[in-house]
Amino acid sequence: MTRIAVINPNTTPSMTATIAHAARLVAAPTTEIVAVTSSMGPVSIEGYYDEAFALPGLLREIGHAEREGAAAAVIACFDDTGLDAARAMVRMPVVGICEAALATAAFIAKRFTVVTTMERSRVPIEELAQRYGMAGRARIRAADIAVLSLEDPNSGARDRLRSQIVAAIAQDNAEAIVLGCAGMADLAHTLQAEFGMPVIDGVGAAVKQAEALVSLGLKTSKRGAYAAPLAKRYHGALSEFAPA
Amino acid sequence: MTRIAVINPNTTPSMTATIAHAARLVAAPTTEIVAVTSSMGPVSIEGYYDEAFALPGLLREIGHAEREGAAAAVIACFDDTGLDAARAMVRMPVVGICEAALATAAFIAKRFTVVTTMERSRVPIEELAQRYGMAGRARIRAADIAVLSLEDPNSGARDRLRSQIVAAIAQDNAEAIVLGCAGMADLAHTLQAEFGMPVIDGVGAAVKQAEALVSLGLKTSKRGAYAAPLAKRYHGALSEFAPA
Amino acid sequence: MTRIAVINPNTTPSMTATIAHAARLVAAPTTEIVAVTSSMGPVSIEGYYDEAFALPGLLREIGHAEREGAAAAVIACFDDTGLDAARAMVRMPVVGICEAALATAAFIAKRFTVVTTMERSRVPIEELAQRYGMAGRARIRAADIAVLSLEDPNSGARDRLRSQIVAAIAQDNAEAIVLGCAGMADLAHTLQAEFGMPVIDGVGAAVKQAEALVSLGLKTSKRGAYAAPLAKRYHGALSEFAPA
Amino acid sequence: MTRIAVINPNTTPSMTATIAHAARLVAAPTTEIVAVTSSMGPVSIEGYYDEAFALPGLLREIGHAEREGAAAAVIACFDDTGLDAARAMVRMPVVGICEAALATAAFIAKRFTVVTTMERSRVPIEELAQRYGMAGRARIRAADIAVLSLEDPNSGARDRLRSQIVAAIAQDNAEAIVLGCAGMADLAHTLQAEFGMPVIDGVGAAVKQAEALVSLGLKTSKRGAYAAPLAKRYHGALSEFAPA
Amino acid sequence: MTRIAVINPNTTPSMTATIAHAARLVAAPTTEIVAVTSSMGPVSIEGYYDEAFALPGLLREIGHAEREGAAAAVIACFDDTGLDAARAMVRMPVVGICEAALATAAFIAKRFTVVTTMERSRVPIEELAQRYGMAGRARIRAADIAVLSLEDPNSGARDRLRSQIVAAIAQDNAEAIVLGCAGMADLAHTLQAEFGMPVIDGVGAAVKQAEALVSLGLKTSKRGAYAAPLAKRYHGALSEFAPA
Amino acid sequence: MTRIAVINPNTTPSMTATIAHAARLVAAPTTEIVAVTSSMGPVSIEGYYDEAFALPGLLREIGHAEREGAAAAVIACFDDTGLDAARAMVRMPVVGICEAALATAAFIAKRFTVVTTMERSRVPIEELAQRYGMAGRARIRAADIAVLSLEDPNSGARDRLRSQIVAAIAQDNAEAIVLGCAGMADLAHTLQAEFGMPVIDGVGAAVKQAEALVSLGLKTSKRGAYAAPLAKRYHGALSEFAPA
Repeated sequence: MTRIAVINPNTTPSMTATIAHAARLVAAPTTEIVAVTSSMGPVSIEGYYDEAFALPGLLREIGHAEREGAAAAVIACFDDTGLDAARAMVRMPVVGICEAALATAAFIAKRFTVVTTMERSRVPIEELAQRYGMAGRARIRAADIAVLSLEDPNSGARDRLRSQIVAAIAQDNAEAIVLGCAGMADLAHTLQAEFGMPVIDGVGAAVKQAEALVSLGLKTSKRGAYAAPLAKRYHGALSEFAPA
Repeated sequence: MTRIAVINPNTTPSMTATIAHAARLVAAPTTEIVAVTSSMGPVSIEGYYDEAFALPGLLREIGHAEREGAAAAVIACFDDTGLDAARAMVRMPVVGICEAALATAAFIAKRFTVVTTMERSRVPIEELAQRYGMAGRARIRAADIAVLSLEDPNSGARDRLRSQIVAAIAQDNAEAIVLGCAGMADLAHTLQAEFGMPVIDGVGAAVKQAEALVSLGLKTSKRGAYAAPLAKRYHGALSEFAPA
Repeated sequence: MTRIAVINPNTTPSMTATIAHAARLVAAPTTEIVAVTSSMGPVSIEGYYDEAFALPGLLREIGHAEREGAAAAVIACFDDTGLDAARAMVRMPVVGICEAALATAAFIAKRFTVVTTMERSRVPIEELAQRYGMAGRARIRAADIAVLSLEDPNSGARDRLRSQIVAAIAQDNAEAIVLGCAGMADLAHTLQAEFGMPVIDGVGAAVKQAEALVSLGLKTSKRGAYAAPLAKRYHGALSEFAPA
Repeated sequence: MTRIAVINPNTTPSMTATIAHAARLVAAPTTEIVAVTSSMGPVSIEGYYDEAFALPGLLREIGHAEREGAAAAVIACFDDTGLDAARAMVRMPVVGICEAALATAAFIAKRFTVVTTMERSRVPIEELAQRYGMAGRARIRAADIAVLSLEDPNSGARDRLRSQIVAAIAQDNAEAIVLGCAGMADLAHTLQAEFGMPVIDGVGAAVKQAEALVSLGLKTSKRGAYAAPLAKRYHGALSEFAPA
Repeated sequence: MTRIAVINPNTTPSMTATIAHAARLVAAPTTEIVAVTSSMGPVSIEGYYDEAFALPGLLREIGHAEREGAAAAVIACFDDTGLDAARAMVRMPVVGICEAALATAAFIAKRFTVVTTMERSRVPIEELAQRYGMAGRARIRAADIAVLSLEDPNSGARDRLRSQIVAAIAQDNAEAIVLGCAGMADLAHTLQAEFGMPVIDGVGAAVKQAEALVSLGLKTSKRGAYAAPLAKRYHGALSEFAPA
Repeated sequence: MTRIAVINPNTTPSMTATIAHAARLVAAPTTEIVAVTSSMGPVSIEGYYDEAFALPGLLREIGHAEREGAAAAVIACFDDTGLDAARAMVRMPVVGICEAALATAAFIAKRFTVVTTMERSRVPIEELAQRYGMAGRARIRAADIAVLSLEDPNSGARDRLRSQIVAAIAQDNAEAIVLGCAGMADLAHTLQAEFGMPVIDGVGAAVKQAEALVSLGLKTSKRGAYAAPLAKRYHGALSEFAPA
């Protein structure tokens, strides 16, 4: 069995359950999905500030997962929180759900629209699309949804998500939809059937990329930007993280 | 079993054998690789002209594969020959080995170098890197190798390939190497061990992307650019290809 | 007399007549326009798939034209079908009508809008605009017109074209209009008068570029990407095209 | 006869003679080339400062040319000095030699190198290449030549130019060369024969573009950026230029 | 005292007064603002043509200011008229109000909208945003205002400006507003209070950049593009400007 | 007095002393520089991993500084560590030294080279240059220097820095040099004198930008990407940071 650690970098176990379910739905029979909830940091990641405080908890789980035998890890937040730091930290491949979703969408559509939760997350995802070379192909829309409200069927969140998909088709000429939050992972199949067009969930996409990298025998390059951290002292509450 | 058709768009069966071997090496146990040699067109694809005449033979095999039950197809030429036409033609996902290799490299390295065969293929691959949003991350080098000489261990081709990898490390600060020709598919593991850095073969990368898309239940979008061809008459030797 | 071959890469002679008329209208007195209809492939080119099957017929005419003494060739389809392959094939200059139209528009306007026929052609033309460095200046609109319906004055096609020009002025701040299909070649003058702004037909634009290149003594570079095809065997129905 | 005004925006008549000769060499039989030397401003344009003071003299000649019946104008300085102002001023098409040279090169080569005179002109031409969408295709080199030294066969200027062409082939993989100064206009044919590759002179290229625009019945758009100047008062020595 | 020359490149003293007031409002106690009206050229700069004729008058004042002891200069027109020429001319830093405003906005907002006066100035400012690397962050809107009408409280100009700010918030998701004309300099504080979001005036922004450069001991680089003009003769009315 | 907090996000007080000195050297008389060493995290920031663990300590100091009356803050690490999170957290302006240095360089030079410490920091700074719109103007070089070795005059670090400046002039045609590490802040004046070209230290540049923003009455926009964090629970060691 190939173990893939899927880290929910927020501290809400019910969201981890949604993520784990989506991951297992698409995982190969030979893949063991270990879904982990971060024990340190925000209950949801909504914007740059929350993201910063999700990093230590996330990276602790990444390091733990590699030591416990994981072959790869997935960071299950659409901001690709801590992705570069995680890659520098470990040798196993680490995949972000935004990068995986955009790469996946690009194989089946020329133009696509990401629908994310809150307006404050729209520009960060635009920046990711820019960084991943997808700025010319991906539009980003926010549905004005609090992340955790996705878990409440009566919150109206799913209706607002649907409205943005309708707008993406009409105004963006979207050929596919990318769900821009790990908390939407369970909606991909329903929405794909409902709208008759490809709908991509980043959690599933990232699990498949992680499996692919393991199968290909590829690990994170340790030349250049992802070179292993140099041994040094870390002060204060985070001293446990100091590279040896 | 999930059947993935891997089409060699040139007409050289020995190269198909190399490609098939590389594909099977990484395929999941539940994947059946059907490797096909095009029966119409050039014996090797070296530049834009050869590429044009590889299209009908390639597309015939793509269409045949879908009708025979393939769940996805891989186009095993690093120029991603006919990729857009193939996607418009069928509903199953179709993956090019260049796009798959670049997308895969981007998960494990910030900067990487593609080493291709002939100088005349360098600019076409630069254009693909631009189109796939990788122009800022990928450098392209040509090793001055005729494609079919890769099959001859005494041709010096592999030494020239190694020289370009050395140059990529020294001059491009490459963090990973992408092999820029389907005919190099068997060299990835050897070179990875030899150079101690990730070396990516596009055939393997594309097989994993095809498997991923099938697992995720994703098909080529039929909205917009990849809409199904409209029924019309085709004249002359190619009339068999007319959309019904 | 300088002979310029204007190739209609679809197999519809009535469209060739429209193209030939537009070409002769602007050709220099010393230019002989030889308009040719491809004898192999689709009756109209609407999307990537048709494009692929237009290539052999188109390239046969390109090669034939050079052997018969043409000084330059124009490919009269707005997708610039087969342009790179044609340039690799011959030494004479070859000009696409999309690239010529965009280059021409850039001399008289900062921002302009291309109005093409079908939605499925919109993204391919966006990709061309990107490749030609015009993505920041050119917007692309589709008028939802079947290519051959342009020949039928009662099809409503021209009204839909006009509606998109109105929208381009109002919404894109277009300073000029580019007609995005060879089948619109006869409308440029009428629309220019009607809308009081520059309206550019690619066929005329390409003829003038071809004349210019001939006058300047310029031929397609044979260094790098457009190097002459290497002699090799082509199998099957297309074996006649094998480079000697 | 179609009159095309070719304006040398520096005040050196011997350079105008070189420019006029190059223009007439490629002009159509039906074209009358009127070559004009600016009467106000620097004797050569080497950098941004000279460029600023070439504008009034240049624009006076542009306005004069249109009033005297010119159908189009060419600005014969590779910095495309005053191009936007000239277009705003008149209705006839105005063509810069840099934009014409780059557009022309793009029809026959994928990658090309501009060789200009002085290092201080390198970045301005890089900015033009960026503005014209050619940054990914054009490299710019400076040969360390004073503009007027091009007129002196014993200055060594031509040898330095040749050295940069050699470097462009070896280091840039240049497929064509663009001569980056109007004062080099007479060298294109010699260098093309000598190096066996396309060598493009902007003066000739611009004359052909001007002829093309006239033949196509296109004038500078008066919507948007090139709208006619609004009537207002100009103070001081330049009051003659105030728009009426 | 550090003297900063603020040059109004149009010849309207009342606009200079507005500019001077805005400059002094933000200047450090140790800064002496010397506000200058150009004595040669257009009464307002509306488009490329006016811009060209503002250059000599502007550059005369720039040179004069340096000789009289200014430590830096600000060009107070949102087209950054003559900025490159001014920098080549002098050693002191020279700052344009567009570049300063965009750089300033980028420190406090991810996305922002410039509201300028006339439609004919929209594209020129888009080109500046592109040149300054801000094309992905800045949208440009025109309020259809004649520059000098800003001085007339009954002209309706300010209402039209407000309408565009409302549109920028609603349609562009603007996080900050940049006032795109020196003649709007006095409105920044009022509009900032009114709309409850950052509103940036380029004159103030440029004064602070000029002060910063002086404090940092930085002068315009004389290597490369801004090398000092070479001594040469200038003919005609502008001969006084010839570099010695 | 205007208080500007200059935060050293690593935990090495001697580097804070260098930073404080550089900040005070250029600060206005009315500016009080409060230099702070982070009490939590790595002793130096060398790559993505260290950066992640510098965030909580840095953000604690940012929040503390605002509560204690700072008018603006500077983050004194060339990776612009935590910049977006800091801006979301507070209303005062926050300036990164990389963004300030690049913006400042752009006012006095067209092309410039950043010399940073370690190869692993080169790509992160290239990404910042891309994000700030400076990718076409800035080259990044690494001098192979450990950050803390800059404090040891016998480490050879300064010689390696000088070697890269020499290379930047010769190979990059650099017009100015940007020092790519806060620990180099004391070298700017010496190197500027030594090389006779502008040398920019980010700490000084950022202090002046912070002063400028305060003078202009500008605060971080709270619309969109920098909206204030939403109240929520943070778990574990970082719970103190939870937004109220």
